[in-house]
Amino acid sequence: MPRLTLPRSWSRVVICWVEPHVDGGAWPVKRTVGEQLDAVAGVIVDGHDTLSVELRYRHEKGPVQAVPLRLRYNNEYEGGFPIEHLGTYTYTVQAWVDQFGTWQDAFQRRVKGGDTAYEIESELKDGALLLRRAAEQAEGDDQAQLLAAADRFDAGDVEAGLDPVVAQLAHQYDPRIGAVESEPLEVVVDPERARFAAWYEFFPRSTAPVPGQHGTLDDAARLLPRIKEMGYDIVYLPPIHPIGEAFRKGKDNRPTAEPGEPGSPWAIGGDRGDGTRGGHKAVHPELGGPEAFDRFVAAATEQGLQVALDIAFQTSPDHPYIADHPDWFKQRPDGTIRYAENPPKKYQDVHPIDFESGDWKALWKELRSVFEHWIDRGVTVFRVDNPHTKPLAFWAWCLGTLRAKHPELIFLSEAFTKPKMMQTLAKLGFNNSYTYFAWRNTKEELTSYGQELFGTDVAEFFRPNFWPNTPDILTEYLAKGGRPAHQVRFVLAATMSSAYGIYGPPYEHVDNTQHPDREEYANNEKYEIRRWNWSDPSSLQGFMQRVNQIRKANPALHHMRNLTFHEVSNPQLIAYSKSWGDNHIVVVVNLDPQHRQSGWLALPMPEGASFRVHDLLNNETYTWHGSHNYVELDPYTKPAHLFRLEFG
Amino acid sequence: MPRLTLPRSWSRVVICWVEPHVDGGAWPVKRTVGEQLDAVAGVIVDGHDTLSVELRYRHEKGPVQAVPLRLRYNNEYEGGFPIEHLGTYTYTVQAWVDQFGTWQDAFQRRVKGGDTAYEIESELKDGALLLRRAAEQAEGDDQAQLLAAADRFDAGDVEAGLDPVVAQLAHQYDPRIGAVESEPLEVVVDPERARFAAWYEFFPRSTAPVPGQHGTLDDAARLLPRIKEMGYDIVYLPPIHPIGEAFRKGKDNRPTAEPGEPGSPWAIGGDRGDGTRGGHKAVHPELGGPEAFDRFVAAATEQGLQVALDIAFQTSPDHPYIADHPDWFKQRPDGTIRYAENPPKKYQDVHPIDFESGDWKALWKELRSVFEHWIDRGVTVFRVDNPHTKPLAFWAWCLGTLRAKHPELIFLSEAFTKPKMMQTLAKLGFNNSYTYFAWRNTKEELTSYGQELFGTDVAEFFRPNFWPNTPDILTEYLAKGGRPAHQVRFVLAATMSSAYGIYGPPYEHVDNTQHPDREEYANNEKYEIRRWNWSDPSSLQGFMQRVNQIRKANPALHHMRNLTFHEVSNPQLIAYSKSWGDNHIVVVVNLDPQHRQSGWLALPMPEGASFRVHDLLNNETYTWHGSHNYVELDPYTKPAHLFRLEFG
Repeated sequence: MPRLTLPRSWSRVVICWVEPHVDGGAWPVKRTVGEQLDAVAGVIVDGHDTLSVELRYRHEKGPVQAVPLRLRYNNEYEGGFPIEHLGTYTYTVQAWVDQFGTWQDAFQRRVKGGDTAYEIESELKDGALLLRRAAEQAEGDDQAQLLAAADRFDAGDVEAGLDPVVAQLAHQYDPRIGAVESEPLEVVVDPERARFAAWYEFFPRSTAPVPGQHGTLDDAARLLPRIKEMGYDIVYLPPIHPIGEAFRKGKDNRPTAEPGEPGSPWAIGGDRGDGTRGGHKAVHPELGGPEAFDRFVAAATEQGLQVALDIAFQTSPDHPYIADHPDWFKQRPDGTIRYAENPPKKYQDVHPIDFESGDWKALWKELRSVFEHWIDRGVTVFRVDNPHTKPLAFWAWCLGTLRAKHPELIFLSEAFTKPKMMQTLAKLGFNNSYTYFAWRNTKEELTSYGQELFGTDVAEFFRPNFWPNTPDILTEYLAKGGRPAHQVRFVLAATMSSAYGIYGPPYEHVDNTQHPDREEYANNEKYEIRRWNWSDPSSLQGFMQRVNQIRKANPALHHMRNLTFHEVSNPQLIAYSKSWGDNHIVVVVNLDPQHRQSGWLALPMPEGASFRVHDLLNNETYTWHGSHNYVELDPYTKPAHLFRLEFG
Repeated sequence: MPRLTLPRSWSRVVICWVEPHVDGGAWPVKRTVGEQLDAVAGVIVDGHDTLSVELRYRHEKGPVQAVPLRLRYNNEYEGGFPIEHLGTYTYTVQAWVDQFGTWQDAFQRRVKGGDTAYEIESELKDGALLLRRAAEQAEGDDQAQLLAAADRFDAGDVEAGLDPVVAQLAHQYDPRIGAVESEPLEVVVDPERARFAAWYEFFPRSTAPVPGQHGTLDDAARLLPRIKEMGYDIVYLPPIHPIGEAFRKGKDNRPTAEPGEPGSPWAIGGDRGDGTRGGHKAVHPELGGPEAFDRFVAAATEQGLQVALDIAFQTSPDHPYIADHPDWFKQRPDGTIRYAENPPKKYQDVHPIDFESGDWKALWKELRSVFEHWIDRGVTVFRVDNPHTKPLAFWAWCLGTLRAKHPELIFLSEAFTKPKMMQTLAKLGFNNSYTYFAWRNTKEELTSYGQELFGTDVAEFFRPNFWPNTPDILTEYLAKGGRPAHQVRFVLAATMSSAYGIYGPPYEHVDNTQHPDREEYANNEKYEIRRWNWSDPSSLQGFMQRVNQIRKANPALHHMRNLTFHEVSNPQLIAYSKSWGDNHIVVVVNLDPQHRQSGWLALPMPEGASFRVHDLLNNETYTWHGSHNYVELDPYTKPAHLFRLEFG
């Protein structure tokens, strides 16, 4: 805002803006360990003086460091620093008039332009003043050198005035008179797996070796080597807590369960005879109880896998919170506790928690302690169910305080809602988010969504995790397109985004029968125990393994913000590339799961160029020429190319 | 930033952003009296509750007012308020959960969906609580109505529960529990002529009736009716102060003046025998001194013209500041005052002021008093010479404090430099700016520059003033293109931007001989007295008058941010339109000053449409059909169309 009083102090230098930032610094940008924070600052000064601009940064537990920013064009200065530690860095830009640099630049032109000896000597005296001022900042040899140079200036030594070594020293000890510094911006640093990870979701209760039995976490642990072998990094389990009995749902979401039906894991219930009071910190006794969970985490850790738990803040009618804290729920005038409703629909098996309860402080702390309970048991990854139906202020506090102690945490937001809500959840602390990827099928849809997510400022804070299916989602495309469609969507998920996941068992087995009324699986595993053949040779196990190997071996596929789309002369073919250092991957996918499609792919190559493209998926190598090359893909034999470009 | 402690209070509602803003509110947006401030806010809440969102605004001298914002899509709410007074308005967005609206929406669905009578009665009791809470905010009849409705709710009256009148009252007296309000944003309101004005620049000394004489401001005043008749709003005079004698420049910027040469008005000098000490508050005695200036302002005011003065903060060697305040200038080691230099070039006739002088507070106040001196004499418009070579902090303070007392002021920034500097000068207080328009000649250049200036967020704070020529600028295009080129550039300036100006006399007379070495006029009036024929029938006087009449009669041409470009199938033809209410103007210009050009103009009209286009410039009417119509322009007879669209 304009000044209305004489400033107490002021500077000729103005920092117009510093990038990156999210909403002007209201929220941190996000990076992961191993990346770089590349900054750009717009900095101006009246007149034509030379500026010195530096990027200053500091990890929350480290000292301030600085790197110079280089002028690129139009008053913009650029440079970056390496991200080496989890947690939070702050960064600012400092800028000041480089008085000696400005002086020397003019002095050179005076000497060349033929100023008189008197004028040159006079200018050298001004230069000497600048050197003596720099010397006050220096010590030892450097100070002595600066003072000696000042003496030579005073003696009229033109060569000394032109000396770049003197300039370098003067720059190093510049007193930075009138330096200005931008407001601090923050970058939150997440673990690499927040950016680069493959998730595998499955129901432990469907892993019993004996048909008809309820699988345990020990049964599930026996699958971990297989999941690891397929190349996954994170195993994600639906809620593992005791399941509510009151109003329990039956097969395929029928309103009431038959005796013996297991219910939905998202109906989090009370004591089931395991000695706990039930609730969000208990483990369903039929899964083997808390000890089995600890063994599962240990087995996963041994495989190098991380375990992701599902946190669904809602309760079944027999959850202990209902009896212990009725004031944590909304009540009717008659004193009964409200169940979930979207009138005229009623969900009597679910009680929403009232985050605005008069006792909200105790409630919020208790809910946060659910995370803490599992963190203490080795869980660092959480998939949070419907975060957009709980207050944003709760998440900001809950995730912020958890991350302050545990910067290694990954929180995946399951918010399928409007962009502003999804983005705000990301800004305030979720570092992974589900997306609309599952419903973006055409080339145009995928291109515009990919550009929105990975090519705009949204990518500074929002990390998409691409899921082609979930227990809630079986799209028309997968239901109708069979095996080729499953391969197509798998390649797209695994290469457009560096973070992706699948609800594994039905995906592997192309078990894609849709429920007659809903875009989800028939015989949905949410409500019943299924059996899967873990060694079916016709499954997609091998295909997934191959794609995941390629992902791991190619750094270009470890990143998100490096996605570029390319033209192909066929609307059924989509092509995009990612580069990282000298690793260049070009992906071409046939979006048509029924027909062979071909076309000319345009890459930004010079006309005379000749280069090899190695299809890592199909193990074929072609030599291509110039910018346009022919591609042809058959959904049944070769649904996609995953090219690595090879030069020379 | 994420919260690290439990919040003291919090709300379920989050305002993501409010537009318009400049750099997140660091600077005000700009509007003029008669415009509207249209705002959009992104507002979200967890779950599916209905939100109430309102725009609150306040003129610096008025009470807070409010208008509701309407949901448009995806959590965005829009609405606006009328700008009625000069000065500063602040605006915020307030949002809260509309508890009764949310309740009634669900209640309607409950009634339709067939909830039991017991459930309906129970819900009505909850609704009654909301009404009683609203009643606490109300008085008199409204309160009585709310309480009566609450009683009917308690009695199980379903009709009352569905009543929109009750909803309206509940909305009006909503206690706004958990309301949140955005940070205040500012809009600076300038006079209409900061947005819509035609400027005419001329040298008063060239207006003497007798050849060879030095014209006075009284001579100049006699031209004012003619300037008014041509349709101009602002007459802009180069500096009117005594001209320095030491190192005075001769004809065409020769290093020394011959005896009797008048010198450059921008070399602001000392006492010339008029009894003042000279300097920036004096009037050159040869122009008639301060009394002639007062008469000039009075004559202009009588014509409805505003007078713009040129403020050039620099001094010639005989300016009184040099003797009175040597410490306001940089000195050499030998104690001499530095003149302007860009080594190896020396400008001994100009001493730059040292804004960083130890005595800067007194200096800044003195410089501001120069504006105050002329404001006291009726001047409200200032063209500021080279503001980018003076500190930005000075301008922020100087213009901010002046505008606080005089919101009617217009400041035109003469900064031909890089975008960030030009934009920052606009942000901190200049409300008009010179641009690169003079050098944007091709369709592609004009289109991309037009889109940058008028179609991006830059238009929120930066008001371009389009000048095809100035005493410093005679472009190749004008020099080579003669009369048609002058007409083309005039129409472009006067219709692309609603604020424009010309250095009048040579433009009118197509006096376009270029200096052999520079892109400026030969026999430059900056250094010598010229004579102009003010009643030359071959001049562009009539053409200018016609264009200015059309500008005044068509509200679409009074605005800047309404510019839209249209396709024409000829790279030499440019077309754009502006609309305001039901006034629609389409401009087509032939950029080729030598050859007839034709093509098909595309307008966004339905295929079957038939409409008349009235060329206000050439007084011709055509009936056009559909989206594509033929246009043909001849540089010698008809260089441009200025169509008004007429329907029905």
